[in-house]
Formats: sequence, structure tokens, C-alpha cells
Amino acid sequence: MSDFGSLRVVALAGGVGGAKLADGLAQHVAGDRLSVIVNTADDFWHHGLRVCPDLDTVMYTLAGLANPATGWGIAGDTTATLDALTRLGQDPWFLVGDQDFATHILRTEWLRQGQSLTAVTAKLASALGIPARILPMTDDPVATKVRTSEGLLDFQDYFVARRQQDDVLGVEFADIDDAHVAPAALNALRQADVIVICPSNPIVSIGPILALPKIRESLETSTAPIVAVSPIVGGKALKGPADRMLATLGYEVSAAGVATILAGVARVLVIDRVDEALAPRIEETGMRARVTDTVMRDRRDREQLAETVLAAAVRARR
Amino acid sequence: MSDFGSLRVVALAGGVGGAKLADGLAQHVAGDRLSVIVNTADDFWHHGLRVCPDLDTVMYTLAGLANPATGWGIAGDTTATLDALTRLGQDPWFLVGDQDFATHILRTEWLRQGQSLTAVTAKLASALGIPARILPMTDDPVATKVRTSEGLLDFQDYFVARRQQDDVLGVEFADIDDAHVAPAALNALRQADVIVICPSNPIVSIGPILALPKIRESLETSTAPIVAVSPIVGGKALKGPADRMLATLGYEVSAAGVATILAGVARVLVIDRVDEALAPRIEETGMRARVTDTVMRDRRDREQLAETVLAAAVRARR
Repeated sequence: MSDFGSLRVVALAGGVGGAKLADGLAQHVAGDRLSVIVNTADDFWHHGLRVCPDLDTVMYTLAGLANPATGWGIAGDTTATLDALTRLGQDPWFLVGDQDFATHILRTEWLRQGQSLTAVTAKLASALGIPARILPMTDDPVATKVRTSEGLLDFQDYFVARRQQDDVLGVEFADIDDAHVAPAALNALRQADVIVICPSNPIVSIGPILALPKIRESLETSTAPIVAVSPIVGGKALKGPADRMLATLGYEVSAAGVATILAGVARVLVIDRVDEALAPRIEETGMRARVTDTVMRDRRDREQLAETVLAAAVRARR
Repeated sequence: MSDFGSLRVVALAGGVGGAKLADGLAQHVAGDRLSVIVNTADDFWHHGLRVCPDLDTVMYTLAGLANPATGWGIAGDTTATLDALTRLGQDPWFLVGDQDFATHILRTEWLRQGQSLTAVTAKLASALGIPARILPMTDDPVATKVRTSEGLLDFQDYFVARRQQDDVLGVEFADIDDAHVAPAALNALRQADVIVICPSNPIVSIGPILALPKIRESLETSTAPIVAVSPIVGGKALKGPADRMLATLGYEVSAAGVATILAGVARVLVIDRVDEALAPRIEETGMRARVTDTVMRDRRDREQLAETVLAAAVRARR
């Protein structure tokens, strides 16, 4: 544990990229002083089970269970249940491993008993021995919808079934206006010494979190330094469709484009060395730019990026 | 297909023994002319999923998927989901394989959509290519409770968790008075040329089916011959606790004891050769006794016992 062990750190995260940086932060921040507020707008019902892709990716990553090849799912997981569902005539369009089904089954059982998603997630994470707090952004249902030339698509239909082939012309978060920030997430933000916006898709992963009015308000009034990491490196998303999504939504596909989205929220934007030339343009938005290696290939990369992010935050606090 | 191919045959069945004879009958009776009315009083909720042990045993057996070692579950099934639930802190007291979970997940999804258990079962069986009709005795919840010195136990608590160690002092079928016979089951009975009571536990497998007033009334007024097969052979149950249950409930533990339960319902009781000496006592109850080999070790045994049962029925019809 490094010098940052006593800080209360809150990370905002979506899926794989966010989970990796969260894992890096967990290597610096003691136990439950790290809170990860996770996007839940991708959550959906699948065969009557509540599936929370981003919560699970963060949970499996922090538990050391994540599949290193994909970033999501559980390493070494098998597909006997999915294969049997296919034998029963079901289209296996959404891959769920056998171990992963256990998570969905138990979560759904507990949710149907009336427990909040925050409570359910805490129990699952605790069972897996995760000291950090994994906090859903809300306990209420919110659903990302993607506007395309084929009409308004459910997020997983766009993302998984149709393999992100459609141009995204707009994004909506259904029921966001009726959703309350989860109390635990809001408390964590209010007590944070440092807030980190992970390198997750700014539109559909960080976007829904920021779309909750109380979260945005809390960030805008927070005295804690807010440091974001660009998920766009060299004009490309490291994973997923963020780059194409930025383009079709009219943003510049670069760390500078990310800066236009996060200006007014984050104080510092961490960008990759390959994007160093963009630093002046980022600083024009009012954010400081911090240049480092941001591609996380292994656990050591995560730890180092987290260290840079935390150091930038501590410096910004002074 | 033998001479019985054109008969409309209805079998009443519980779990393993009933499923085996149903498989034998399916080797003689054409396609959907065989209907198997199955006990549902063992059904229960497990991790928020609806588990129907007897329906599944019949279904897997007729699909040729059943585990030959146990009689229940799917051959070669794995336990990755169950192991992951255990890692999440759950007690794995009830064994569910990964492929088996697929059945429970899909059934639960469809039930929660408002489909009847009869409709759901038909879709599952059809997906597995089963021509026979597998019919739940009722679409309504009925729950077997077992009275013991430890109190009234849920059936699966008695049967699986406590491994049938308790003396059964009484049996109740909760909600049976509010349960309606499933229309498909009642129709099948009314159109039957032959009715077979399979060698399943007469108290907790056949008992709940007969406890539905319309089923008992239909059997008592049916012109179709009703042939039962004793699940007690040489004073022992071939599988499960039927022998001990008969003893503690005050019945003779023999085919003659079975006869006292089924007299007034069945016209013929098929008993094993080892019980031949009991034939006169069985005939005193008003039933005919038919002696043959009743132990089904392989598919050929099932086919032969089914042939004997059908031949006895045809003879009784004359």
C-alpha cells in the first residue's frame, strides 16, 4: 500500500477499462476506502434474471476472477447452461458462463426478495472477498437506449446482438428522471478525498452516471479533486465502440473530444503519451492535462496508472 | 411399435420408477397417444427458480438424457453454477447440474410471464423432441409436507436436506383443496383407453395425484382398465423411502400393503415374481394380481414391463 492508502477515493466506472483502473486503485487505497460507483444503465433482464454487466465486470476484476482475454466474464468459465438453453430452443445471443449464471441467479433471488441492488452487490462482493465497495449508481431501473437508423434499440441489442454495427445517432437513458442516486453512492461521493473518472465510454458508461442530477450536482460542488482518464488513445477506443459513437454524435474522436464532454466536471484529464500534442487544447477547456502511459496491459500497468491518477489528484488538491 | 400403438394410454407417475415405466410405455405407444400425468407436489422454489423434480425426471428420461447412475438429473452434467453459488456463500444442499439449471431458468421465465406449467412443460418437452405428452397433475401450487418428530417439514427438506432420516408420521398436501386438475391432464384421463399407475411412491408420488378430487373421481368412473405396478418388491422399495414411509404410516410393507392403498382405484396390480405368494391376498382386495419381473435395470426391462402392463390392461378391458 502506497502513500495514498488513507485517502477516501471514489471511482466512477463502466465496464472493462473502468474495472482495470479500479483494480489499480485498489492496489493503492486501503480496504473500503475505495468506492467504485458503477453504471447500471446497461443492466437488463435475460431469461428472467437480472444481469448487470458493468457491476459484474468490476466485481470479477476486483476479485481476481475476470477473464483476462475478454476483460468480462469469469476466467475458465464454461457454457453448459447456455448450451442447454440452446438445446431448449433459445438463441444464445448473450454469452453467460455457468459461474456467471450463479451471480445472476443469486442477485435476482435477492432483488425479488426486495433487497436493493446496493445491498445485493455488497453481499456478492463480500462473498468474493472484495474489500473495496462496489456501488451501483442507482437502485432504480435505468435503461440506455440507442437511436439508430433502425430505430431506438435496447442497449444490449445494439451492443451484443447487433455487434455495434449501427451508427449511434443519439442516446437516451430511459427512466433516468425517476431514478434516485443510491444513498451509498451519494454518501461515498460526499466523503471523497479524490474522485476518479475511469477510462470508460464517456457516452454510455460515464454518461448515465453523470446524468443522475444529484451525482452531477455533487461533482460540481465537491471540493475533492476530480481526475478523469481518457478512454480514447491515438484517436481510437481501446475497447468497444466509443470512438465510432463519438464520431456519429458529432464529437472529435480524440482525448480532446473527451475533454469537451468532461469539462466542467473533471479538473484534470489524464491522456496517453501518444496524445501529448493535444494537451494545450485540453487545457483550453479549463482542465489540466496530465500525460502518461494509459494503456493497461497487466496488473502492474493498472497500479502505475492509478498511481499517476492519484498523484495528479493530490497535486490538484493543493 | 407393438400392438398397443393405437391405444391412448395415460400413466400416472412420480420420479425415477415412474419415469422408467413411462419410457417403457413410450416404446409401445405411438407419439402423443401416451400421456404421463406427473406429480407436482414436490415442486419448490430454489434460488428463485421453480424446480419440478418429477416432471424433469420424466422429461429427461423420455428424452434419453437422464443420468443412468441416479435416475434423475442429466447424464454427464457438470456443477460449475452450483460451485459458483457455493463460492458466493450458498449451501449446496440441493444438487442442480448446469444443464438442469437451464431447464429451471427457462421454466421460471415462462411461468413468470404467466404461462401455465402445462404449457411450459409442453414447450420444454417439445424442444427435447419428446413425442409423448408430459402433463403436470395441476398448474396450481401444491406442496407436500411431511409430519415428523421434528415437526412439519417441507418435502425437499425431508427428502434431500435431511436425507429421509426422519420417521414419517403423516403426510399433507398443502393447498390441494384449492388446486384444480390441469385441464390437459383431465382430458387425457377422460380419453384414455388404458390407465397405468407407475411404480412410484404410493404416498408422496401417486398420493398427491389421487388426492386431486377430480382425478380420483375420473379414475373411479373411468371405463378404461387401470393397472398399477407395485413399487415394493420383496418388502423393499427399489428406490427411496417408500418402504419406511409405509411402515411408519401403519401399512404393511409389501405389495399387499400397496394393494390396500390402491384398491378401489386400480383393477390390476402387477407384482414381482418374488412376491408371488402375495397374489391371493391382493385378489382379496378386489384387484387382480399379475406376476412378472418388475425390476427395470435397462431399457429392455422397461419395454418388457410396459408390454406386460398393457397386455394386462387389454385383458382386463375385455
